[in-house]
Amino acid sequence: MRIYADNAATTKISAAARSAMLEAMEYYGNPSSLHSEGQKAAELLADARARIAKLLNADVKEITFTSGGSEADNQALLSAARLGEKKGKKHIISTAFEHHAVLHSLSRLEKEGFEVTLLPIPADGIVTAEQVKNAIREDTCLVSVMYANNEIGTVQPIAEIGAICREKGVLFHTDAVQAAGHLAIDVQAENIDLLSLSAHKFHGPKGVGVLYARKGIRLTNLIEGGAQERARRAGTENLPAILGMAAAFEEACGRIQNNDALAALRDRLIQGLAEIPHSLLNGDPQKRLPGNVHFCFEGIEGESLLLLLDDRGIAASSGSACTSGSLDPSHVLLALGRPHEIAHGSLRLTLCHENTAEEVEKIIQAVTEVVAYLRNMSPVWRTLQQTQEFIIK
Amino acid sequence: MRIYADNAATTKISAAARSAMLEAMEYYGNPSSLHSEGQKAAELLADARARIAKLLNADVKEITFTSGGSEADNQALLSAARLGEKKGKKHIISTAFEHHAVLHSLSRLEKEGFEVTLLPIPADGIVTAEQVKNAIREDTCLVSVMYANNEIGTVQPIAEIGAICREKGVLFHTDAVQAAGHLAIDVQAENIDLLSLSAHKFHGPKGVGVLYARKGIRLTNLIEGGAQERARRAGTENLPAILGMAAAFEEACGRIQNNDALAALRDRLIQGLAEIPHSLLNGDPQKRLPGNVHFCFEGIEGESLLLLLDDRGIAASSGSACTSGSLDPSHVLLALGRPHEIAHGSLRLTLCHENTAEEVEKIIQAVTEVVAYLRNMSPVWRTLQQTQEFIIK
Repeated sequence: MRIYADNAATTKISAAARSAMLEAMEYYGNPSSLHSEGQKAAELLADARARIAKLLNADVKEITFTSGGSEADNQALLSAARLGEKKGKKHIISTAFEHHAVLHSLSRLEKEGFEVTLLPIPADGIVTAEQVKNAIREDTCLVSVMYANNEIGTVQPIAEIGAICREKGVLFHTDAVQAAGHLAIDVQAENIDLLSLSAHKFHGPKGVGVLYARKGIRLTNLIEGGAQERARRAGTENLPAILGMAAAFEEACGRIQNNDALAALRDRLIQGLAEIPHSLLNGDPQKRLPGNVHFCFEGIEGESLLLLLDDRGIAASSGSACTSGSLDPSHVLLALGRPHEIAHGSLRLTLCHENTAEEVEKIIQAVTEVVAYLRNMSPVWRTLQQTQEFIIK
Repeated sequence: MRIYADNAATTKISAAARSAMLEAMEYYGNPSSLHSEGQKAAELLADARARIAKLLNADVKEITFTSGGSEADNQALLSAARLGEKKGKKHIISTAFEHHAVLHSLSRLEKEGFEVTLLPIPADGIVTAEQVKNAIREDTCLVSVMYANNEIGTVQPIAEIGAICREKGVLFHTDAVQAAGHLAIDVQAENIDLLSLSAHKFHGPKGVGVLYARKGIRLTNLIEGGAQERARRAGTENLPAILGMAAAFEEACGRIQNNDALAALRDRLIQGLAEIPHSLLNGDPQKRLPGNVHFCFEGIEGESLLLLLDDRGIAASSGSACTSGSLDPSHVLLALGRPHEIAHGSLRLTLCHENTAEEVEKIIQAVTEVVAYLRNMSPVWRTLQQTQEFIIK
C-alpha cells in the first residue's frame, strides 16, 4: 500500500465530490440558457454558490467561480491594481514567500509601474501585522498575504492584518489556497476583501476555484467574453466541478473540528523526524497547517530523498509542486534565511484525514533510513563529519 | 421525452468522456510532482496532449490546455497583440460576428491603442478571403476569423484566409469553438497559427479547452504562476477534464464522416421551417455546421417562442447562450443586416448525432404551431397582415 503524503500538492477527490460531479453531468444544460435544462443548471449553480458563500461567511454576490487558485490570484491582484491606479495609488505590499501566482502577477504589475514591497519572512515563517502596518504608505492600494504558506505551512495572522488594512483603507487579499477547507475562514470577521481558493486542495475537483471579492469591489475581468459570473468571468460555467467543489468544501469544513487529531499525527511526525541528526523543522512548530511537516536535512539532495522515499511507497515533496521542475532552491526557504545547500535538502510531508498513525511511523522509519543511507554515500557529508562545520547543529 | 436541440450552447457529456474522467480521478497525483503518482499523471497528460495534437495535425508542443474556449480566445489575442506591438504593428482584423470572447478582447486592445477592423458580414453569413486580403495593412499583426459562427453556423473559408495570412506574414487565429469535433480541422493544411477550442461543445467535459499555437509563436500568459504547460498557463493541470476532452474529441472527430446523416436532418428541419410564412433562414443553407438551423420569424418575440417550445419539451435557443441574459438583439443578426424587429424573432436549433428524424418532425410541428399561436395573439402581427408591410416576404 502506498502512503500519499503530498496533500498540499493535490488531494484525492472525495467520494461525495465525485458523486456530486457525476450527478451534475446529468444536468448538462447551459446555465445561461432559457430552457428547462438551462434553468435547472442555473438553480444548481446558485445553490452551490450559496453553500460556498455560507462557509466563508460571505454573500452569494461576492463569490466568483474561476478555473482554480492561480486564476483567482491573478484576477484579485489585477483588479486591486486597476482600482488602485484610478486613485493614483500604485504601491502594493506582499511577502517574499507568496505562491508564484501572486509573485509573478506582482512582477507583471511592476513592469506596469507599480512599486511592490515584499515583506521579509521572520525565522518562524510568520509575518507580523506590525510589519504590514509599517509598510503601508499613502499610495498603498493593496496588501496581499497568503493565509498559510504552501511549503512550510505556517499560518499568517490574517485577522490582525485584515484589521490594519481595513483601518488604513487599503484592500486586503489573501491567497487561501492552502488554508481553505483546512482552517475556519470568516471573511467578515477577518476583514478580508479578496480571497482565492482552489477545490483540489481540499479533496474537491481540479480545475475549479473561487475568487471572493467583498461587495463594492469592482473586479477586472481576466477572461473577457460572455456575461457569466455577473460579467466578471466569461466562459460557460463548469457546473459539475462547481458542485463537486461545494460538496468537498462542506465536507472539509466539517472536518476542521477534528484538526486536533490531524495535528497530533503531524506533531508525532515532527517529533520523529527531529531525532534525525542535523535536521531542522521549517516554520513555527504549532502555528502551521494541521497536516504540514517541513524539514531540512543537512548534506542531503532533496530530489534523491524523494525518489528513494517513492521507491519505498511514500509520495512526498521537496516543496511546491508548481516549481518542482526547477533546479533553483525554494524561494520560501531562501526567504526564511536558509542557505542554498540547506534549502536543497528539504522535505515536505503533508497529511490529510485519511493518513493514519501507522503510516506516520512508517514515514519516520523510512525517512530516517533514507537520510542515513544518502549521507553514507555522500562525500559532502564525510567532509562535514570531519570538519564538524555543520550549518544545522 | 425532452428533445434537446441546443447543442451549440453545450452538449451532454459522452459516456466515454465521463468514463475517462472517472478513471483519471484515480490518478490524482499532481503531474508536476516527482513521485510515482505525479509521474503517472504526467504520463496520462502527455498521452492526452498527443492524441489531441494528432487530431488537429499539430505537434504536442503546440497544444496548451486552458479552462475553455473563452480563455483560449483571450490568450490567443493577447499573445498576438504583444507580439505585434513589439514590431510596431498594432492593427488587427476580425469580423463583426465573432464571439464576445474575441470582440471584448479586441475592445480591450483598442483601449490600449490597437486599431481594429471588423469586417462586415455578407448576406450569406460568410466573410471572404478577398475581404481579409483587402483589409491587411503594413501594420496588421493579426487576423482573427471564427471557424464557424456560433449563432448561424456558417463556416468560414479558413484555409483560404490562412493562405493569405501566411503569404502576407500576418498571424491568423481562428475561434474554432463551434467547429472543433464537428468539422475536420488541419492546422497545417489550413495555415492556422492560433486556434481555440472547447470540449463541452463536442460532448466533452465543461471547464477545459485548448489553445493551439504554432511553433515559434510565443504565448503571453493570461494566468501567471507555476510553470505548468511549459510556463504558458499556470495552475495545476485538470487531468480528469483533459482526459475526458481527449476521449470526446476522438469520438467526435470519428463521427465527422457521418456528417451527411446529420446534415440531412438539418436540411429536413430547414425545409420544414421554411414553410412557415414570413420565415427566413439565416446564413448559407449548405455552408453551415451540419447540425445548425437558424431562422427569423417575423412578428415573433424570440423569448416567448423559446418558452413555449420548452413547455412542449423542446430545448432551443434564440442565439448564443452567452448573451441570453441580454435584451439587446443578437450582434450576429445585426451584422447580417437584419432589422431589430426581425432579429428579435430568432430561433436557433442545433442538432447532434443523438437527435432523430422523429424529433425533427416533432420540432417542425411544434415550431409551426407555436409561431402561429404567438402571431394570433399579436397586435403587431394583425397590423402587418392589414398593411402587408412585411420585412420577410
